[in-house]
Amino acid sequence: MIYLDNTATTPLLPEVIDEMNRIFKQAWGNPSSIHSIGQIAKAELESARNTIASVLSAKSSEIYFTASATEGIGLMIPNIIKKNQIQHIITSPIEHSAVLKTIQHCESVEVHMLDLDKNGAFKLSNLEDKLSHCKGNKLVVLMHANNEIGTLLPFKKVSELCLQYEALLFCDMVQTIGKYDISFSKTNVDFAVASAHKFHGPKGAGILYIKSGRNYPPMIFGGGQEREMRSGTENVPAIAGMAKAIELAKKDLTSRSQHIQHLKSYFTERIKEEIPDIKFNGNSQNGGLYTLINISLPLKISPEVLNMKLDMAGLSASQGSACSSGVMKNSSVIQYLYGENRNALRLSFSFLNTIHEIEQAVDILKNIVHKK
Amino acid sequence: MIYLDNTATTPLLPEVIDEMNRIFKQAWGNPSSIHSIGQIAKAELESARNTIASVLSAKSSEIYFTASATEGIGLMIPNIIKKNQIQHIITSPIEHSAVLKTIQHCESVEVHMLDLDKNGAFKLSNLEDKLSHCKGNKLVVLMHANNEIGTLLPFKKVSELCLQYEALLFCDMVQTIGKYDISFSKTNVDFAVASAHKFHGPKGAGILYIKSGRNYPPMIFGGGQEREMRSGTENVPAIAGMAKAIELAKKDLTSRSQHIQHLKSYFTERIKEEIPDIKFNGNSQNGGLYTLINISLPLKISPEVLNMKLDMAGLSASQGSACSSGVMKNSSVIQYLYGENRNALRLSFSFLNTIHEIEQAVDILKNIVHKK
Repeated sequence: MIYLDNTATTPLLPEVIDEMNRIFKQAWGNPSSIHSIGQIAKAELESARNTIASVLSAKSSEIYFTASATEGIGLMIPNIIKKNQIQHIITSPIEHSAVLKTIQHCESVEVHMLDLDKNGAFKLSNLEDKLSHCKGNKLVVLMHANNEIGTLLPFKKVSELCLQYEALLFCDMVQTIGKYDISFSKTNVDFAVASAHKFHGPKGAGILYIKSGRNYPPMIFGGGQEREMRSGTENVPAIAGMAKAIELAKKDLTSRSQHIQHLKSYFTERIKEEIPDIKFNGNSQNGGLYTLINISLPLKISPEVLNMKLDMAGLSASQGSACSSGVMKNSSVIQYLYGENRNALRLSFSFLNTIHEIEQAVDILKNIVHKK
Repeated sequence: MIYLDNTATTPLLPEVIDEMNRIFKQAWGNPSSIHSIGQIAKAELESARNTIASVLSAKSSEIYFTASATEGIGLMIPNIIKKNQIQHIITSPIEHSAVLKTIQHCESVEVHMLDLDKNGAFKLSNLEDKLSHCKGNKLVVLMHANNEIGTLLPFKKVSELCLQYEALLFCDMVQTIGKYDISFSKTNVDFAVASAHKFHGPKGAGILYIKSGRNYPPMIFGGGQEREMRSGTENVPAIAGMAKAIELAKKDLTSRSQHIQHLKSYFTERIKEEIPDIKFNGNSQNGGLYTLINISLPLKISPEVLNMKLDMAGLSASQGSACSSGVMKNSSVIQYLYGENRNALRLSFSFLNTIHEIEQAVDILKNIVHKK
């Protein structure tokens, strides 16, 4: 099976599995226990926090652990609204459903949607216009890279505008942490989230970054873990696995990203040769997030049939965000931007993919189109 | 190191570690992906749900996965209050901090605390009195077994009273699931929570039981996982590990519980011989949860010094709930019930402990007391 759905999740690296097994066997204690078996686990937990903070150029005290990025979004945004008496949220209509649905259920805030072009990008003047017109406390919620069409946020300029207009900035970095060199000490983001299983780490571990100096009420009440922010016994093995995964991602960032960019360029070139009337969605072909490409094949078949054909041919790719609970439906991002059923197909690469797999993927797609 | 703190957390069983490694390697896909790599993970997820449902004699549709019991408590109780327009909560002052702190932050409900005797038990007449006097929608929140002194809930009678007075019943079963033969089909509990790492399963996996027919709004918004109840990519390896752990707990229930009860009786007998003026807290000596005993040594030393002495001698036991983020403080349950610093020490057993370890533990305690 050729796995080109690395935006949905990534295979665990052997080093990450080894690290988790080490913790399973050597540091299985409860980090809240004051005896040495507990304190061994506590030391592993804090060591993982230090590693992650160091990779992201953050302070350890700015890193909180969650079970997923979705949790960080879903529990923290209402928290921010309450604590800061936020009256206006400025966001985009193609954010992850965790953001859109959470915001939709936040009473007492007015939601302002940015206008997007066909690439899913907004004009900075549109953001500035909204920031200047919203009176009262503001929160801007935008993803660093869109998970379906790869639109990249003009991060520096957005954060400067947020500073200028005294808006807080919450950034969904699920597709960029572990793929880009993120330095929180050099950016003006107030909150960010990431998820380990998107960068070859384990499921069940997420990062919530909160800029230092900001104290928030608990997201989950109880024993007071995560400096009172998120109670519940810490998932030390998964957190240690996440630290190992992000450490490797940082160490090999250049080689991994060059390899992935090469795979993507090669795929793009070859697929245009084989299927000249292919369409590229968003600006994933040129620019945008380097790990994915979103295409529409010249086919008039249902998504179910396309999925079946791909699966039978041995190619795993996505016809929408993976977070749809297995329900076959078209990408909401594609629907929003193009207003039509484009039979969009997202192919997303990891450094584990090979040129040979890309060759095979092109062949599979070519055969599906030409034998229609 | 002799580990007698199995109430805080338990060592992972090799079978559980093997199961997680199997999933790491063979079913690492995203269960929401519709291609076969995703569907393999989805099948493992649902297989785990079926196993757990079967062990607990519940329907699979009644089992929801969380990252911890604390999460199930912290996110579900406010949900229940909102959905059912709960006006009164009846609970006990020695519930887990996840319950007490969550309830404390629920606005719009009146909280009624049961009166407890020195064993942490309440009179059924007291519960009935409160149930009959509270007008409006009621929620009863009580733990099946107290995690510090082992008080057991008269479960059947409590659930009958709740039925009679039309109150919903939420039961914290963290210390009993995996230790007793729990059958949801034979009980009238509406909600229950459990945590895998308390029964030799992994951290990061919890169970939320919701009696069928009750639909609740999401605890976390997003991709719609867990039938819209709890979004976020499912932690399939930990969930599969939890299923393996609960399956083994069920299979070996009799032999494990007999062994643990033997360890506890032996400890009790021996410690009374060696330290005649020992005190037993709660009714953990006779009756109560069979996995733990709570004692006070005839010592006038600080908890810090006692902890150091125990640790140096090689005995891991708890001087309070483990959920206190490593802060050395006396058990809030002991404080509440006895209003004094009793230097309480909780020893909690698992089937992995041996009689030889109990012998050693008695020797260690004897030496600490006699060499004071």
